[in-house]
Amino acid sequence: MPKNAFYAQSGGVTAVINASACGVIETARQHGDKIGTVYAGQNGIIGALTEDLIDTSKESAQAIAALRHTPSGGFGSCRYKMKSLEDNKREYERLIEVFKAHDIGYFFYNGGGDSADTCLKVSQLSEKMGFPIQAIHIPKTVDNDLPITDNCPGFGSVAKYIAVSTMEASFDVRSMAKTSTKIFVLEVMGRHAGWIAAAGGLASSNGTEIPTVILFPEVEFDQEKFLAKVQANVEEHGYCTIVVSEGTKWPDGRFLAEQGTRDDFGHAQLGGAAPVVANMIKDALGYKYHWAVADYLQRAARHLASKTDVEQAYAMGKAGVELALEGKNSVMPAIVRESSTPYKWSIGSAQLSDVANVEKMMPMEFISEDGLDITEACREYLVPLIQGEDYPPYKDGMPEYVTLKNEKAGKKLGEFEVK
Amino acid sequence: MPKNAFYAQSGGVTAVINASACGVIETARQHGDKIGTVYAGQNGIIGALTEDLIDTSKESAQAIAALRHTPSGGFGSCRYKMKSLEDNKREYERLIEVFKAHDIGYFFYNGGGDSADTCLKVSQLSEKMGFPIQAIHIPKTVDNDLPITDNCPGFGSVAKYIAVSTMEASFDVRSMAKTSTKIFVLEVMGRHAGWIAAAGGLASSNGTEIPTVILFPEVEFDQEKFLAKVQANVEEHGYCTIVVSEGTKWPDGRFLAEQGTRDDFGHAQLGGAAPVVANMIKDALGYKYHWAVADYLQRAARHLASKTDVEQAYAMGKAGVELALEGKNSVMPAIVRESSTPYKWSIGSAQLSDVANVEKMMPMEFISEDGLDITEACREYLVPLIQGEDYPPYKDGMPEYVTLKNEKAGKKLGEFEVK
Repeated sequence: MPKNAFYAQSGGVTAVINASACGVIETARQHGDKIGTVYAGQNGIIGALTEDLIDTSKESAQAIAALRHTPSGGFGSCRYKMKSLEDNKREYERLIEVFKAHDIGYFFYNGGGDSADTCLKVSQLSEKMGFPIQAIHIPKTVDNDLPITDNCPGFGSVAKYIAVSTMEASFDVRSMAKTSTKIFVLEVMGRHAGWIAAAGGLASSNGTEIPTVILFPEVEFDQEKFLAKVQANVEEHGYCTIVVSEGTKWPDGRFLAEQGTRDDFGHAQLGGAAPVVANMIKDALGYKYHWAVADYLQRAARHLASKTDVEQAYAMGKAGVELALEGKNSVMPAIVRESSTPYKWSIGSAQLSDVANVEKMMPMEFISEDGLDITEACREYLVPLIQGEDYPPYKDGMPEYVTLKNEKAGKKLGEFEVK
Repeated sequence: MPKNAFYAQSGGVTAVINASACGVIETARQHGDKIGTVYAGQNGIIGALTEDLIDTSKESAQAIAALRHTPSGGFGSCRYKMKSLEDNKREYERLIEVFKAHDIGYFFYNGGGDSADTCLKVSQLSEKMGFPIQAIHIPKTVDNDLPITDNCPGFGSVAKYIAVSTMEASFDVRSMAKTSTKIFVLEVMGRHAGWIAAAGGLASSNGTEIPTVILFPEVEFDQEKFLAKVQANVEEHGYCTIVVSEGTKWPDGRFLAEQGTRDDFGHAQLGGAAPVVANMIKDALGYKYHWAVADYLQRAARHLASKTDVEQAYAMGKAGVELALEGKNSVMPAIVRESSTPYKWSIGSAQLSDVANVEKMMPMEFISEDGLDITEACREYLVPLIQGEDYPPYKDGMPEYVTLKNEKAGKKLGEFEVK
């Protein structure tokens, strides 16, 4: 009898995480001899702990196919970091019990660095507990900070959205600069790594140069140098666009925009670097400004997804299942860049022990010497990732995104309280 | 000899104002027997006052065609309201002198209510000064607040952007709500009229219902009622999306955004109704939130333009020239709605004396009884305006927006100082 599979989405969702889900489910359905039902965790790993398993076999082929063009997490995600094995063995054991009760032999976990760590532990513990499970991590994060893989599904679409939005807003402020707004500040995501902010540097494309200043979390904020560059841009071009990462910090280590609240992982919740920067410019240089905070709009913008990103997200889901079918365990499929021009990529894989809890920062050779722009090397890295458009279908002017039925499988175990 | 034409863009630019410019220039080029060169004001009407006239005949047919898919104001716009004839007759006379010096017989002014007023005055004064000019106003404003015309070019594309973005971000927060963010707040433009905020109500489309609360400038903010509806939505659906107009006011007439929050450095955070609303919800109900301020992104988002809007913007430019060729003066082409389902529209016209300085607010029958949502009548009005997609061409992952050469015609008059 084929074993069943469990799939869950973890952490912040993206424009293309559902494309990975689609890749997992469609590929599993093609191998009914080896994989039975794919159960999805309702709200991520929490659904496994509470035995809230969505029976994806109840969804039509059409609904599953529509996941490919639907942003967000179709089964619900969660911000819930499993503690270490020592601190909370009970939860890991519960996972194995649930998997055992539902005859689950494959665990596909779609997330970032924290999830890779959970995935690794599940694999290790299940072996010890005598119910071996093949645990496969499927990479996802808009932060693009997973190691080994050349890039992370979800990032290319955010990058495209930020690049295009920065270009469009810059055209706008350029039109207004003579008598009105001279400064546009766009705040983007990226707490620790400046990958998303870097995408703002692509606003200068297709023959139009946009005077842009980028603030990276990797570079200590130098107010004097920053203001000098903004002023020089306005004096030369009449206007200036600033892309500021939410993770940009003062030299003393404090965020430009710390609000004092923290998420469940203990990360500071940010938001508001843009008004801080805009007011600073107004105070020092007197320029009229506008500012925007893209927040969820950037990572949910499936309407402007990168075709490359969608294809890679799907391919990672598919490859995850294929690795499982090859008998692999504790691995993650990875994107391998074969060449940048022309862009060629293939699929490799990584050991989870090499992925878990490792954060890939922007290499310093991707940031210009003054710390306020990207380099040509960075552009060469980024451009392939935003290639191609992959528009969702529209009806009556609005995208036809799917909302699944999400019917749950019957419970076989007692209650379990998630703390 | 055919008379030359002058065209200028006025006020805040839009995703489709260049499509109107394209309509004006392409149509004028087809009537070389009656219209000579089209000069464009560099930075709007200021370019006419300072005699900075862009000679659009130097632009290729291909470059002019590309204006149709390029957001912003290709010739530059300005925020410069001409004073009344009594207060600044000197400026109006200067305009006529410049038009006379360059043999300009047609004045096409592409803007909102203030511009319609200027356009009217130019026509009146030119007649008195013995150099009659046909003054045609071409409607444009994301605020959708011009009278007579059923809707204003620029609005449909913002509405589509806000509707799609609200839907996408709502899918995102729905995925996260179990353990994390339950509230998403999106701040949109519209200082006096709630048309743009109303578009957030279209997030519920194509079979998916999004629990949305909308805050209009037309409705006094009632904190208690607002919080009760947010709480009810979260209790029923698990999450809630709020679309707040930047123009929403407290009962005492102050803007919500004026309440102002301060960052850790004691700086006031200006112009953020979204963080005010988000913090209010957190304080009263304890829900975790995210917020976004779309600002220029919404009105520059040519990548997601409404096809209807692009067609209407082009048609208004074309119709403006045709009205001029018919000998009309002091008029504005207008969009006439023939039917909503199926959507049919035609082109009419309005006297500028009926348009100038009149602001069209949301009719109260478009706002639900509780003041926090749109009605079916509003939906019926809005849906046709966001119909169809009109994607720009892309190269290397980025839109191919045009930057014109903008070569200026030689000056024939002395300097003129704009105050």
